Amino acid sequence: MRINVVKNVLNSNDVVAEKNREMFRKAGLLAVNLISSPGSGKTTLLEKTIPELGRDKRSVVLVGDLDTTRDAERLEPHAAEVTQINTGMSCHLYANQVSGSLEEGKLKGMDYLFIENVGNLVCPGEFDLGENVKVVLLSLPEGDDKVAKYPTVFRVADVVLLTKVDLKDALGMDTARIYEDLGKLNPGVKIFEISARCGKGMKEWIDWLKTERKKGVGVKARKVE
Amino acid sequence: MRINVVKNVLNSNDVVAEKNREMFRKAGLLAVNLISSPGSGKTTLLEKTIPELGRDKRSVVLVGDLDTTRDAERLEPHAAEVTQINTGMSCHLYANQVSGSLEEGKLKGMDYLFIENVGNLVCPGEFDLGENVKVVLLSLPEGDDKVAKYPTVFRVADVVLLTKVDLKDALGMDTARIYEDLGKLNPGVKIFEISARCGKGMKEWIDWLKTERKKGVGVKARKVE
Repeated sequence: MRINVVKNVLNSNDVVAEKNREMFRKAGLLAVNLISSPGSGKTTLLEKTIPELGRDKRSVVLVGDLDTTRDAERLEPHAAEVTQINTGMSCHLYANQVSGSLEEGKLKGMDYLFIENVGNLVCPGEFDLGENVKVVLLSLPEGDDKVAKYPTVFRVADVVLLTKVDLKDALGMDTARIYEDLGKLNPGVKIFEISARCGKGMKEWIDWLKTERKKGVGVKARKVE
Repeated sequence: MRINVVKNVLNSNDVVAEKNREMFRKAGLLAVNLISSPGSGKTTLLEKTIPELGRDKRSVVLVGDLDTTRDAERLEPHAAEVTQINTGMSCHLYANQVSGSLEEGKLKGMDYLFIENVGNLVCPGEFDLGENVKVVLLSLPEGDDKVAKYPTVFRVADVVLLTKVDLKDALGMDTARIYEDLGKLNPGVKIFEISARCGKGMKEWIDWLKTERKKGVGVKARKVE
């Protein structure tokens, strides 16, 4: 009984997600869904990424959090528009929360849409928002066993960002097991090691975003492939 | 419609949770539900805590993860019995997964039951497992804004463990905002700053567990208070 209900929720979510994807395609932008545990650095990443994307203020940001507008306040100086979606008790964003936050015409002339999902390494992976790419962040302090323990989200990632690599020495860890587990689970996935604090890897990540946008990723329809 | 279904799930979960609590009370043990983001240090905490609890092998552990038995393998040398619950796609444990993993008599003579929930700072807070105390871990690398952003789980915590405090210098952060936000949200909550790696604060935490158990916490019925 419960499973049927959840399936219906997922189905109706997929219908809205496809409409979102068509909206992004028409707008000619790259829509990025950022997924991770709480505190792996999504907001800091956007603070350091958006200003480097070239043409000023051509990014729209949606931020999902249970409560507060803190992340939106941090990002407001950098983006053309930031909308905070407070989900209350929901642990992920739904596609209709994305469409409901993007009024007609809001995306015109925009290059990027960044959707910062609720901090959660499980549920957001199951809900398509219509994005072009799913970017999953894994911060080094979370440990090198997380890919195997949270496979659902890493399986659907287009990009994995290993964040806070400036802490590698303080943590006394290496990343070999992360690469090994990702190689088994999602062999084609793109991996960047970055630190928004010290700047390591940021250029490669930003260059990748620019290239993806120029490819006309709006044309990519993941569900149809 | 969907809300009704979720309410039913919560209600039926509460019925099972009360039965669990009665089972724990009869066994005379302290049942601890450990909740946190992925990678905040739940398993490492238990590796360092259980051997210090005095009488050897009087702890039973249930570990929830989407996949793998890695945590159970790490804890097996320390506990009388460890059961890994693989939840598949579910982002938290249900009370019936706890009762289903504890056959009649398994708790006899035990002092502690540790339930390591699925790594998730949202959903596990909503599902009572019958525990005596909810312990929420927040690792310093997750940042000092998490209490305000994930209020549901911090509101129901009996104890908050600030973990990985050995990284304080490397992170260049302090904990003032965490205390301030917890003071507003959950004024009576017990807070420990600990590092399982360097040992800081571990004695205070372990002493607290021993004291709670001796109080005969099995008698405490949270729902009835």
